[in-house]
Amino acid sequence: MGSSFGRLFKLTTWGESHGPALGVVVEGCPAGIPLTVEDIQLQLNRRRVGQSAVTSPRSETDRADLLSGVFEGVTTGAPISLITYNKDADSSKYEEIRDVFRPGHADYTYWAKYGHRDHRGGGRSSARETWGRVAAGAIARKIVASAGAEVYGFVRELGGIEMATFDREEIERNIVRCPDPVAAQRMIEAIGQAKAEHDSLGGIVEVRATGVPVGLGEPTFDKLDALIAQAMLSIPAVKAIELGEGFAVVRSRGSEANDSFFAENGRVRTRTNNAGGTLGGISTGEEIVVRIAVKPTSSVARPQETVSTALEPRTIVVEGRHDPSVCPRAVPVAEAMLAIVLADLLLLNRAARI
Amino acid sequence: MGSSFGRLFKLTTWGESHGPALGVVVEGCPAGIPLTVEDIQLQLNRRRVGQSAVTSPRSETDRADLLSGVFEGVTTGAPISLITYNKDADSSKYEEIRDVFRPGHADYTYWAKYGHRDHRGGGRSSARETWGRVAAGAIARKIVASAGAEVYGFVRELGGIEMATFDREEIERNIVRCPDPVAAQRMIEAIGQAKAEHDSLGGIVEVRATGVPVGLGEPTFDKLDALIAQAMLSIPAVKAIELGEGFAVVRSRGSEANDSFFAENGRVRTRTNNAGGTLGGISTGEEIVVRIAVKPTSSVARPQETVSTALEPRTIVVEGRHDPSVCPRAVPVAEAMLAIVLADLLLLNRAARI
Amino acid sequence: MGSSFGRLFKLTTWGESHGPALGVVVEGCPAGIPLTVEDIQLQLNRRRVGQSAVTSPRSETDRADLLSGVFEGVTTGAPISLITYNKDADSSKYEEIRDVFRPGHADYTYWAKYGHRDHRGGGRSSARETWGRVAAGAIARKIVASAGAEVYGFVRELGGIEMATFDREEIERNIVRCPDPVAAQRMIEAIGQAKAEHDSLGGIVEVRATGVPVGLGEPTFDKLDALIAQAMLSIPAVKAIELGEGFAVVRSRGSEANDSFFAENGRVRTRTNNAGGTLGGISTGEEIVVRIAVKPTSSVARPQETVSTALEPRTIVVEGRHDPSVCPRAVPVAEAMLAIVLADLLLLNRAARI
Amino acid sequence: MGSSFGRLFKLTTWGESHGPALGVVVEGCPAGIPLTVEDIQLQLNRRRVGQSAVTSPRSETDRADLLSGVFEGVTTGAPISLITYNKDADSSKYEEIRDVFRPGHADYTYWAKYGHRDHRGGGRSSARETWGRVAAGAIARKIVASAGAEVYGFVRELGGIEMATFDREEIERNIVRCPDPVAAQRMIEAIGQAKAEHDSLGGIVEVRATGVPVGLGEPTFDKLDALIAQAMLSIPAVKAIELGEGFAVVRSRGSEANDSFFAENGRVRTRTNNAGGTLGGISTGEEIVVRIAVKPTSSVARPQETVSTALEPRTIVVEGRHDPSVCPRAVPVAEAMLAIVLADLLLLNRAARI
Repeated sequence: MGSSFGRLFKLTTWGESHGPALGVVVEGCPAGIPLTVEDIQLQLNRRRVGQSAVTSPRSETDRADLLSGVFEGVTTGAPISLITYNKDADSSKYEEIRDVFRPGHADYTYWAKYGHRDHRGGGRSSARETWGRVAAGAIARKIVASAGAEVYGFVRELGGIEMATFDREEIERNIVRCPDPVAAQRMIEAIGQAKAEHDSLGGIVEVRATGVPVGLGEPTFDKLDALIAQAMLSIPAVKAIELGEGFAVVRSRGSEANDSFFAENGRVRTRTNNAGGTLGGISTGEEIVVRIAVKPTSSVARPQETVSTALEPRTIVVEGRHDPSVCPRAVPVAEAMLAIVLADLLLLNRAARI
Repeated sequence: MGSSFGRLFKLTTWGESHGPALGVVVEGCPAGIPLTVEDIQLQLNRRRVGQSAVTSPRSETDRADLLSGVFEGVTTGAPISLITYNKDADSSKYEEIRDVFRPGHADYTYWAKYGHRDHRGGGRSSARETWGRVAAGAIARKIVASAGAEVYGFVRELGGIEMATFDREEIERNIVRCPDPVAAQRMIEAIGQAKAEHDSLGGIVEVRATGVPVGLGEPTFDKLDALIAQAMLSIPAVKAIELGEGFAVVRSRGSEANDSFFAENGRVRTRTNNAGGTLGGISTGEEIVVRIAVKPTSSVARPQETVSTALEPRTIVVEGRHDPSVCPRAVPVAEAMLAIVLADLLLLNRAARI
Repeated sequence: MGSSFGRLFKLTTWGESHGPALGVVVEGCPAGIPLTVEDIQLQLNRRRVGQSAVTSPRSETDRADLLSGVFEGVTTGAPISLITYNKDADSSKYEEIRDVFRPGHADYTYWAKYGHRDHRGGGRSSARETWGRVAAGAIARKIVASAGAEVYGFVRELGGIEMATFDREEIERNIVRCPDPVAAQRMIEAIGQAKAEHDSLGGIVEVRATGVPVGLGEPTFDKLDALIAQAMLSIPAVKAIELGEGFAVVRSRGSEANDSFFAENGRVRTRTNNAGGTLGGISTGEEIVVRIAVKPTSSVARPQETVSTALEPRTIVVEGRHDPSVCPRAVPVAEAMLAIVLADLLLLNRAARI
Repeated sequence: MGSSFGRLFKLTTWGESHGPALGVVVEGCPAGIPLTVEDIQLQLNRRRVGQSAVTSPRSETDRADLLSGVFEGVTTGAPISLITYNKDADSSKYEEIRDVFRPGHADYTYWAKYGHRDHRGGGRSSARETWGRVAAGAIARKIVASAGAEVYGFVRELGGIEMATFDREEIERNIVRCPDPVAAQRMIEAIGQAKAEHDSLGGIVEVRATGVPVGLGEPTFDKLDALIAQAMLSIPAVKAIELGEGFAVVRSRGSEANDSFFAENGRVRTRTNNAGGTLGGISTGEEIVVRIAVKPTSSVARPQETVSTALEPRTIVVEGRHDPSVCPRAVPVAEAMLAIVLADLLLLNRAARI
């Protein structure tokens, strides 16, 4: 269970990091959307390993095959199946961890839950699973765009370095995806330093959605915020989420925290956006603002204390080709999940009124 | 849509704050659990208004009627229906906000989504809806207890005042549910001060689960963390969540953030618990640690800028009997949601292996 | 599990035949539908016991209380909760079957599945549960009507007596709901005869939907036919279902069974309707035609062989106030289920295209 | 929507008859089940075209690739992805029906629902979609077997010829899968005759499950009967279903229809099995008996009246390589669906009691 997400726009991901292939099936995509494999590849390339000096040197092309649900360039309403075959899966390095639990990884919990596990590169728990999310997200973006909305994201903080300026144009100009080019440079250096020291860094990724229509979200459990929270915490390495002012709002008073309403061009707006674009779990029409905490990569080539499946003490050094910080590649994944939630809620909202 | 939560242990809440009644239907509760209405009332009383000087003076008794699913004191496997009739719903005060949107409330978004709204006390968006969650949570606690686990919560910070000491026994000894009696006293004073100033305070609530078996959580979208996040963000006024070290972990390195494994009494343990009890979205057996940000109550009796349904500018002063801070009453609600997630995952986990 | 039905328009029924109350919660009803408790009571009265000489003399009024989801006479989009309190539940007669399994009833299977059971009048397995279905169906009918469609049903055969003529106006003029007044009279006599002999009769109920828009049904598993089949087989005592020509079609050839298309007033029509209004699991716009087999009432006051919970042989005579044939009261239940499926698919269909 | 089926054991099929590939993803298969691609291929070969003189001569090998969820020959609890690439898809014949609706097919309804359609071989509505069901069914059979149960099926009637004797061993010995070798021979001749006349035949397929534990089924909407009904009516060309005595039971009286209980070897049994193995929607432990009506193949190479997408009258002769009767190949499909329902309910039943 648990490999599906969404109510009307629903994806099911499958595949292991060192199995023959990975993929995703997207159900509930409306008919009539122009869609090509290039639309999808574009987003996948942003998530791909080996795309820059700060990502894992593993050389997967991550090429998507589009196997169903599109006919003559347009979606048909049938499930859309996307697949990628693993090319550069080197399982040899993993033989030695067959019976040892890597700290910070899901090795132990999968083993305990399922009784045995695919130990090669994390198997199902690998972040490689997010390939399918980004592919599905590319489709979701089309639905989101049809409503006049758009999703984007960036790295706000990495290795303790915070961005100080914001220029959206800068985001994709640097390899850490930071909207502040000065901070970006320092982040890149920090990653290099951590890598040299066989260690890793965490950070904060922010994703936003602009142009979102008012009315998205299904109270009371499928609130916009609640579904975004589930979506984000389902991403590997994410340990926290906040919307709008988030944790900071707890130190303000109600009179300060409330966003005042005013009318502008026949539309209700708010003067501030402390709420991050939702009220009562429903979008207000203001920008959706989401921040997530990404923990430092668990795979570090330093000696760590652990135990074996026989509960014997062991020391482990996790070799392999890992990202010293997953934040830059987490950006397209978080964007995809936000787009997926919005697409789903846009479709659900069509049934809100008779 | 959206009034149901859970996969196997599933609740559906219904009712408006000023309607005749509210309730909850719990599906999927296993047969064979001893259950009385007193078990449920015990938890409801912790959520009740009027229970102390820091809560709303509204005087609902919140008495639960148990209408189905229990026979001769034991659950039967049939849906459990619980209902409470509203006694002290005074709608007269709300007439003046019929056509005005209260800032920080769901008035505008409900109106925009559904075309009209029950304006009396927030209607469906009222925190009164959480009655059903706490009732269902009392049942979930029984399932959780049957697995040897337990859920508890407390106020960690309120109005900027942080707890400095932790004594679990203190929590229910003070009316703000803070495990530090000194901080508790200061919090109570801060609430009094805010109330006098017609304003409100936010805070941080922490909920924990101890004794949780290893193995709970359904990768990859129904991870333990992901479902907890959805559950918590579905609670009114909650704007952020973190597990374990949460946002703080982004400033540590992988070698620090990873929790080392060791063996103790034939069991795998971790030396630290930065992860907050989950790895790869599955419980580790360590304590589950969850913190949520609760915004200051939106209803404040101070003039606020807003607009009417006709988009005319208005100034509003929200009168009524509101909690100056909802944190103390949010504790049993957050506990209930955590218990519900755990109960659901405990049942789902029965199907993990052949 | 299993007490909920529907994807967007979703009902959850609860309650036992001899518990304090029964009810239903309807989620996903769009906002903006005028709805009164009278709309619902009208349908409930058609299902009620004691309505005529051919039904059980139990005297429940089945009065519905409407507790949520409607404000100022219009649905709000919030869950609609409906409840009825049991008035005439006489449990005394059931004490003697506490430890004996009635043949044809769910006594044994509930006991085996859940470990204990509410033996009073069948508890959860009682057809009294259908109260909530008819109530929810009354709401579904409003959605169906908004699309220009309508559902109706009748008794086609009872106790071996088949209808020979069809006049829709006749259906509600006789107490067996048969569109052939002559056959109706014979059915009524057959029921009287069976009752006098302490026995019971089965029959065939037909439900139809006219004016259904083309396009309803979600291939491949949630086909219109498939959901109707689940809905109908979930009704107590129903053992078979067919659409259109149903079982009879197996003896025709493809060239005969296919319904030819032609155009009429700018619309695609079929010359015949052997398919019963669906092709590929999607409505064609022709009349939906569904027939169900209703077994004879299991409660008969004749000696029957059975065993006790201790597996000892017993002879049982099931006393009580039972319908000698449930067919007439099954009509509004089957209509309700068809309306519910159609309402759900109408809402789902809104997401079929971008 | 609608391409998924199941609650815990859940399959999602994807793919079109003339697209590059088809497949299925199975979620919720418990870990620890030995599973090879040969286990699956064995069942797929029973569904394959070109397997005998009575099936379509299309020459798909239907070879399954197993892409995930199995490690070292054992299921891991992760989703199982199975795929087959189309080899012998000849789309050229379909060009002429691009703008014409074939009677008895889903051409018109798909076109009306989705606005355009993949006209090649029925696209998504093709029975080729059942490849994934049979593949998933092979996995479900393993779960069913682990509970000591088994599913099998056969052709009971074809082209008006009914079986007169039953020998289970005979079923797979003849190409129509009829347990009566004499009737089988006549059915084969009837198929040959119909084929020569460019026409097609329908029939009745029966599937049974033996050794099913008592207790499967989730009242009140997910009754065993109800889920079987949905499963069977979701199979292309199926128009009716009955359990046990089915439609025939309506002409018996309650005293006859009820199956008497007796005890045998410490187990509750019934003397007869009119109910077909379920009471109150829960399995009794007796054999599950299901019969479905399979309509004659809609593709017949005879002139039929129809209309074009422009609503102009047309005459169509459907050429192509079709089964003159799909009954023999419907057997493994119906078996698969029954196994899937049972596997799902077996897993769900683990949560029935504390």
